[in-house]
Amino acid sequence: MERHFDEELEMLNTDILKMAVFAERAIFQSIEALKNRDKNLARAVIEQDKKIDELELVIEERAISLLALRQPMARDLRFISTGMKINAELERIADLAVNIAQKVVELAGQPLLKPLIDIPKLAVTARKMVKDAIDAFVHRDQNLAKEVILSDPEADNLRNIVQQDLINDYMVKDGTTAPRAVSLLLIARNLERICDHATNIAEDVIYMINAKNVRHHIEKLNPK
Amino acid sequence: MERHFDEELEMLNTDILKMAVFAERAIFQSIEALKNRDKNLARAVIEQDKKIDELELVIEERAISLLALRQPMARDLRFISTGMKINAELERIADLAVNIAQKVVELAGQPLLKPLIDIPKLAVTARKMVKDAIDAFVHRDQNLAKEVILSDPEADNLRNIVQQDLINDYMVKDGTTAPRAVSLLLIARNLERICDHATNIAEDVIYMINAKNVRHHIEKLNPK
Repeated sequence: MERHFDEELEMLNTDILKMAVFAERAIFQSIEALKNRDKNLARAVIEQDKKIDELELVIEERAISLLALRQPMARDLRFISTGMKINAELERIADLAVNIAQKVVELAGQPLLKPLIDIPKLAVTARKMVKDAIDAFVHRDQNLAKEVILSDPEADNLRNIVQQDLINDYMVKDGTTAPRAVSLLLIARNLERICDHATNIAEDVIYMINAKNVRHHIEKLNPK
Repeated sequence: MERHFDEELEMLNTDILKMAVFAERAIFQSIEALKNRDKNLARAVIEQDKKIDELELVIEERAISLLALRQPMARDLRFISTGMKINAELERIADLAVNIAQKVVELAGQPLLKPLIDIPKLAVTARKMVKDAIDAFVHRDQNLAKEVILSDPEADNLRNIVQQDLINDYMVKDGTTAPRAVSLLLIARNLERICDHATNIAEDVIYMINAKNVRHHIEKLNPK
């Protein structure tokens, strides 16, 4: 029995939401694993990534077959092409959480370098940006998408603080801290890259809503 | 006057090649700037990125309008959807070259930490992988695409060598080297990420050629 086009679009929407839930969970769990030095949780994040990779392929194939068989126009075309891009961004976000989890496994045997404050804060920002970007997609909320884009400099700033702190207060003062400090620094960079992907999603959402491309040009978007 | 569909596909092809030339040049110049401590060349890489960002948008808009107006089937559909993905990968590759150029500007006022050997080697690998991935796209050469994918572990390995060397031979022995060592380490990671994007392109090309998705499953591809 042939499905209605609307149903197929709805399935695509649902699958992207599922993908977003997986990606958000991977971020949350990788940072919980870091905070609690929990190797098993870190391994679970790495293991779960297979499911995310599979779902990415399913979504992509579905989107391409919708394009080919349904030949959608205008609004639907933008929804499907945006869905394909968001799908790819979410898969990369999950990969970055896996990178973090891998570092947690490496670090688990060693004493904690310092109390973690700014990295969990950056992780909260990253999750919020991903969640808001996906909410903006679901509710076609241009203002929320814009907020995501405008919060990216805050994430960059937080990552800079983490990096400078690790270099100046640890590595420079005591070189033997370098291996652990570099791992934390790379975790912070992975989180910042998650924020960058959330920004990409928000830009894609704005394009979907008003067919205006704000990538590299957020100033093009009118004020609220 | 309306253009033929074939001409439009050819224009898309040509623009992607142009994008690839820009991206390869950005990698080359950013590493030349690093080797020669050439701030002006690094600034030129940063400046040129605007042109790459603009071309990315032109290509994307053209591809979407081809999808919408021409409603291509099967082979052409895969060519256009792959072209869109390669376009996005090339833009990110150029961004990573910009990241390197920014580090070169920061480093230019400071004495060189060490003679650069492995980083330029990694840069050569990165450029070759990007070039081969694009050649595989142009000539629909599945074996060349597969070679790109199989050379990615070599890039990971080279980056590991650079990282371990910087940590153990510099940062641990003399903490004051940390700021410069971290910059070099991040440059190596940017190069490795360029290799990852070249791998993504190669996977997209294989999909385009035989409609078989090898992402996350290179073993699915039969031996030559």
